Amino acid sequence: MEAKFRSDTAGKPIRCRAAVCRGAGEPLVIEEIQVAPPKSGEVRVKIICTSLCHGDISFWRSESGPFSFFPGIFGHEAAGTVESVGENVVEVKAGDLVVPVVQRNCGECRDCKFKGNACTKFPAASLNAMPRDGSSRFLDKDGQPLHHFLFASSFAEYTVVDVTHLVKISPEVPVDKACLLSCGVTTGVGATMKAAQIEEGSTVAIFGLGTVGLAVALVLAFNSLIFCSCISILRSHLISLKLIRTVAEGARIRGASKIIGIDKNLEKFEIAKKFGVTDFVNPTSCGKDSVSQVIREMTDGGADYCFECVGSTSLIREAFDGSRQGCGKTVILGADLHGSPLSIHPLEILAGKSIMGATLGGIKPKQDIPHLAQKYLKKELRLDGFITHEVNFEEINKAFDLLLQGKSLRCIIWMNR
Amino acid sequence: MEAKFRSDTAGKPIRCRAAVCRGAGEPLVIEEIQVAPPKSGEVRVKIICTSLCHGDISFWRSESGPFSFFPGIFGHEAAGTVESVGENVVEVKAGDLVVPVVQRNCGECRDCKFKGNACTKFPAASLNAMPRDGSSRFLDKDGQPLHHFLFASSFAEYTVVDVTHLVKISPEVPVDKACLLSCGVTTGVGATMKAAQIEEGSTVAIFGLGTVGLAVALVLAFNSLIFCSCISILRSHLISLKLIRTVAEGARIRGASKIIGIDKNLEKFEIAKKFGVTDFVNPTSCGKDSVSQVIREMTDGGADYCFECVGSTSLIREAFDGSRQGCGKTVILGADLHGSPLSIHPLEILAGKSIMGATLGGIKPKQDIPHLAQKYLKKELRLDGFITHEVNFEEINKAFDLLLQGKSLRCIIWMNR
Ligand SMILES: [Zn+2]
Ligand SMILES: [Zn+2]
Ligand SMILES: [Zn+2]
Ligand SMILES: [Zn+2]
Repeated sequence: MEAKFRSDTAGKPIRCRAAVCRGAGEPLVIEEIQVAPPKSGEVRVKIICTSLCHGDISFWRSESGPFSFFPGIFGHEAAGTVESVGENVVEVKAGDLVVPVVQRNCGECRDCKFKGNACTKFPAASLNAMPRDGSSRFLDKDGQPLHHFLFASSFAEYTVVDVTHLVKISPEVPVDKACLLSCGVTTGVGATMKAAQIEEGSTVAIFGLGTVGLAVALVLAFNSLIFCSCISILRSHLISLKLIRTVAEGARIRGASKIIGIDKNLEKFEIAKKFGVTDFVNPTSCGKDSVSQVIREMTDGGADYCFECVGSTSLIREAFDGSRQGCGKTVILGADLHGSPLSIHPLEILAGKSIMGATLGGIKPKQDIPHLAQKYLKKELRLDGFITHEVNFEEINKAFDLLLQGKSLRCIIWMNR
Repeated sequence: MEAKFRSDTAGKPIRCRAAVCRGAGEPLVIEEIQVAPPKSGEVRVKIICTSLCHGDISFWRSESGPFSFFPGIFGHEAAGTVESVGENVVEVKAGDLVVPVVQRNCGECRDCKFKGNACTKFPAASLNAMPRDGSSRFLDKDGQPLHHFLFASSFAEYTVVDVTHLVKISPEVPVDKACLLSCGVTTGVGATMKAAQIEEGSTVAIFGLGTVGLAVALVLAFNSLIFCSCISILRSHLISLKLIRTVAEGARIRGASKIIGIDKNLEKFEIAKKFGVTDFVNPTSCGKDSVSQVIREMTDGGADYCFECVGSTSLIREAFDGSRQGCGKTVILGADLHGSPLSIHPLEILAGKSIMGATLGGIKPKQDIPHLAQKYLKKELRLDGFITHEVNFEEINKAFDLLLQGKSLRCIIWMNR
């Protein structure tokens, strides 16, 4: 089947199914679409499975923001095989297992070559189209173009992805696990390994095991330790995306001595334990003390690392206050587009603290995702616990329901099972 | 002479000369004082030379602050030999070359052993007395106690320093160069090597080659690249001190590709060049552009490291805005006690930037100062250019004049030349 596609379809449009969304908050409709061949620097990918990420939910239910995604094809956490490649693509070839990544990684620009992970290859790329020419590769059944979503649009049997947004994965990795590495797990683990670089013996506090209001730009998964959201930051033509977080799993790998979870919902603590959380603080049971005071007492002066995963400016402030004098790092993994600014006196920072943030956990996709895949194969990274449900493509709206009801962590959606 | 002291004076009070200050802004007066023998954990040091640091000036001319230093003995950048040690001191012995350090380093507490440099051995220690018992080892000619200053009080022929504030230096290091490592150079070089960890090829912007107003707590040296101040931060019983900075020298050692100095005073650029600064920005010549815009243009998107050395909240903001998307670090090396808080939206941090501060450049004195001394001996750290003047102890007020008039970088004050 695949071999047939490979030889027959290269260079031609492909007719296939996609879950199209025509309006904010509307159920997706499986429609027949037409997927154009990849242009220069692009790759057409046959999606094998995809999963639903809170980033999808965020944009799906909101009309707001500078981009319109309607009508369009959502989905950005996925795995598939290369069907064909456009001109000038040498990095992957037909048949390769690949995952799309929202975080661009051209490998050529100063940022890709040197440090950080804010690729500057296409500075003006918009989130709802192909990054090189700003156009679409999708036509609906009436011949009307459909919007792309976060350079992936994986809720389709075939999609076109710019090669700078594609990572090749070892075929040894099961395709559903590869899918997890596409966005969610990578951000959380990356935040602890790359951005924060937690040393063995560190104390870690994770702020926000609870749900967050609809008003905030981030959506928090029901699971205490999996937070996922994609928010677009448009400031001076710079685009930044935040995805899922699995901070505790990352902290466990790094040998943290104490991992404190902070949440109002006690029920979440049992789940959190399985992910390595060792201590819990319920902010509503702190009495007169602030959460930061409690954290400082539990850690004899403050936690070495505080991760703020909710996106509340006041919680970021608590995280900063709960971080250790002289070395405490506050890592911001959530932020509310409409939230208030953070106010900190420079002297508080001078005292040796730091605040940082990172998109996709600070990882360079093409270099670090294959590394995480190897960690999975060597059983150093646990991915199995994240998948709680599986559905067929036709049932994609069920995946939305499961996530919205807080019943699933990750629901794998199989395109052709 | 020294041998005589070693055998004769141990365990007894020593009468010697000190430059006593009896009121804010008043000239120092050379008086005969009595220095008590060191108590447990303390060391009596024969000062060979000391230098004047802007931190001294800061406290000398100001009555404000929670501590009174009057009457007292200033000075904290110095080098000397151990005269005798109190009980339980095994780390140094009579005759050792040592330098006092404001940043405590007990080597036993969690912070000394693990990470950061905010030693928590004596959390409540005040800046004007011995840290263990809060008393003084100095009596003036009328038998009245004199205040200590920043755990050093080096403007005296003999002083008593807690062993946690003392670093042993290889006797191969010339004593005047050892003196520089006591405070100033260490902070600046440390900030780039330890706190910021600048990689080869990085771009660096140094904000504030200019003088700062009298109103701010930091005092900027006339030299474009040497900033020195000691400010006390008293917040929740935590004390933090900021000292001299020689950021450019540190950046040069780390192989930065571009070191941009930002200052309103063009005359400083010639001096700055000698310290490795490659490019200059005069904020008053930027036209409609902000300094941060100019920095972003010069670095194709922002500097990897921005050091703010003035202590102005608005300049810290410019430094942050001039730092690179995705990886830019803003290192705060100055802050105004009376300045306004810094306001930053969490989304700006999420985009991959970070802000940090560090006392004494983030170095652990007992581990890192001997390392810097080795770098000097191996000619990897240039210390000679910092010494511009030398005076005898009796002329100490001349050293004040030279610094206040912007004529000296470092003036070595010899106790008995
Ligand atoms: Zn790039
Ligand atoms: Zn996502
Ligand atoms: Zn200590
Ligand atoms: Zn100093």
